[in-house]
Amino acid sequence: MRYLIFAVVFGLVLSSTAWTEQSFYEPVPKMKHPADNKWSKEKEELGKMLYFDPRLSGSNWISCATCHNPGLGWGDGLPRTIGDGQKELGRHAPTVINSGYFALQMWDGRKKSLEDQAKGPIGAAAEMNQDYNDLLKELKAIPGYVKRFTSVFGENSLTIDNIAKAIATFERSVVSKNSPYDKYWAGNKSAMSSSAVNGMNLFFGKAKCSICHNGPVFTDSGFHNIGVKAAGPSKVDLGRYNETKVDFDKGAFKTPGLRSIAQSAPYMHNGTEATLEDVIAFYDRGGDVKENLSPLITPLGLNAEEKKDLVEFLKALDGEPIKVILPDLP
Amino acid sequence: MRYLIFAVVFGLVLSSTAWTEQSFYEPVPKMKHPADNKWSKEKEELGKMLYFDPRLSGSNWISCATCHNPGLGWGDGLPRTIGDGQKELGRHAPTVINSGYFALQMWDGRKKSLEDQAKGPIGAAAEMNQDYNDLLKELKAIPGYVKRFTSVFGENSLTIDNIAKAIATFERSVVSKNSPYDKYWAGNKSAMSSSAVNGMNLFFGKAKCSICHNGPVFTDSGFHNIGVKAAGPSKVDLGRYNETKVDFDKGAFKTPGLRSIAQSAPYMHNGTEATLEDVIAFYDRGGDVKENLSPLITPLGLNAEEKKDLVEFLKALDGEPIKVILPDLP
Repeated sequence: MRYLIFAVVFGLVLSSTAWTEQSFYEPVPKMKHPADNKWSKEKEELGKMLYFDPRLSGSNWISCATCHNPGLGWGDGLPRTIGDGQKELGRHAPTVINSGYFALQMWDGRKKSLEDQAKGPIGAAAEMNQDYNDLLKELKAIPGYVKRFTSVFGENSLTIDNIAKAIATFERSVVSKNSPYDKYWAGNKSAMSSSAVNGMNLFFGKAKCSICHNGPVFTDSGFHNIGVKAAGPSKVDLGRYNETKVDFDKGAFKTPGLRSIAQSAPYMHNGTEATLEDVIAFYDRGGDVKENLSPLITPLGLNAEEKKDLVEFLKALDGEPIKVILPDLP
Repeated sequence: MRYLIFAVVFGLVLSSTAWTEQSFYEPVPKMKHPADNKWSKEKEELGKMLYFDPRLSGSNWISCATCHNPGLGWGDGLPRTIGDGQKELGRHAPTVINSGYFALQMWDGRKKSLEDQAKGPIGAAAEMNQDYNDLLKELKAIPGYVKRFTSVFGENSLTIDNIAKAIATFERSVVSKNSPYDKYWAGNKSAMSSSAVNGMNLFFGKAKCSICHNGPVFTDSGFHNIGVKAAGPSKVDLGRYNETKVDFDKGAFKTPGLRSIAQSAPYMHNGTEATLEDVIAFYDRGGDVKENLSPLITPLGLNAEEKKDLVEFLKALDGEPIKVILPDLP
């Protein structure tokens, strides 16, 4: 009897929450700003100036925008990014798009906030190679910056932390939204091609993409070893393991968001897959390297049309253009 | 008698063309486009994409905008610019502003048109270090570019010459206008401070600036040895002489335009003067190097206030902001 009641109740619950076509759709929420770095238009504008200012680097030649170029999907279009001295680094420059929604930053999640992240490349010898004290001296000599920092953060506020806060505030403005996918779910069923709709159903079903790529910006904010082959100057890259020292994390990298992903080729943490087609083929064959591979990664058995449909769906995640008017630097 | 007639006639001519306050003012004319590279909005937009696209360089990391950065007065803010391999070069990156009005391009005038100029840095090993054939192969693999070239220049038109034509067309849109100086002469006498007005009178008078810096964009399109000291990796830079092999041109460099000049510090062909104040002090002392010095350069005997006034006038040549919306690259 107890089991019968259970079964009936379970059946009722099941039918009331029955899977509907719409159940997996999540729109991009309003951006949240941290309590200790509240948004203001002036702060965002200051951050935009800093973002585009090559004087943030030791060479005065590399800006945030050099490697996170709005014209190239807020990445740099290279397999692995380039740093100070024009030397190739070990990982692909991740896009800034929707990074304000990520729980952790960097491919290995070693930065907990965009504020933390923004400071990293400025000071890293292999990236922008800037001495923080030199930077502060340089910026303090530019009256337009002093004036703006004072207005945004108060007197004597030109510090590396406030530089990072302003840049993070600008980065939180970089959001992909109103994609064909969003329009489709807003009721415009012609916004997505039938191929893209098929791709969507594969994405959330047979192709298992949504096991990791889920939520409003298509990431579980987790780390997985998906079997990417080594490439570039870093022969062995242990990824998340460097942070956690847990064997399970060896070769695991952060699940990237997928909105506007068509804009920021090539793909994978080390840029080994040139196109979205290549990425789908990679997953279809169950990855390349089997050592410490996540059990989530298995061959998918997709046919040519299914692969094409998945690519069409990914393209349907392209948000409306993010318009950037270049700032006049002070 | 003959001399008397001459004196009377000369006097009449002189009085009829008497120097009026306004006689030296010239507004910026409408930009002219060459007959073999007519303007269209689509061509300008294509040129803007190419201008901001780092894939034009061999490293895929350096775009025209890296060294001619709209945010830094369409220069790079460095004394001497940086090229492939992040190596310092011998000369200062000249601003793109108003370059469409120049009779010759480059500090030594070795390029006769913006079209010619645009090709130079792309292919130069020390600058963007790109092989033209590789570039064409790369761009032909980007459907968005092929489509745009076809639309602008016709079928199979993705050539280095057409790349240059598009970039030159974009560059001709980069014009400094509606400065306080222009507003002053349009009748708004409060557009310039009295210090700037004094500076203007010094500029066209006692300080002799307008001997070379004249015309609508403040250049005679000539080459002069003004006595700039050597700096940077090029110990000896013969400038215009390299082109003409005329002794007179040893150490002579092109007279830069002055509109919006406050935006593109530092100054001189090798960036040896950091600020406008430094430039005025340089001319006041009659230059630094006396060898082959132009006879136009002599000490000026300006007092502190006159120097300040001249700087104020140069700042009054700042045009209205040139708004650039970053292109989404195909």
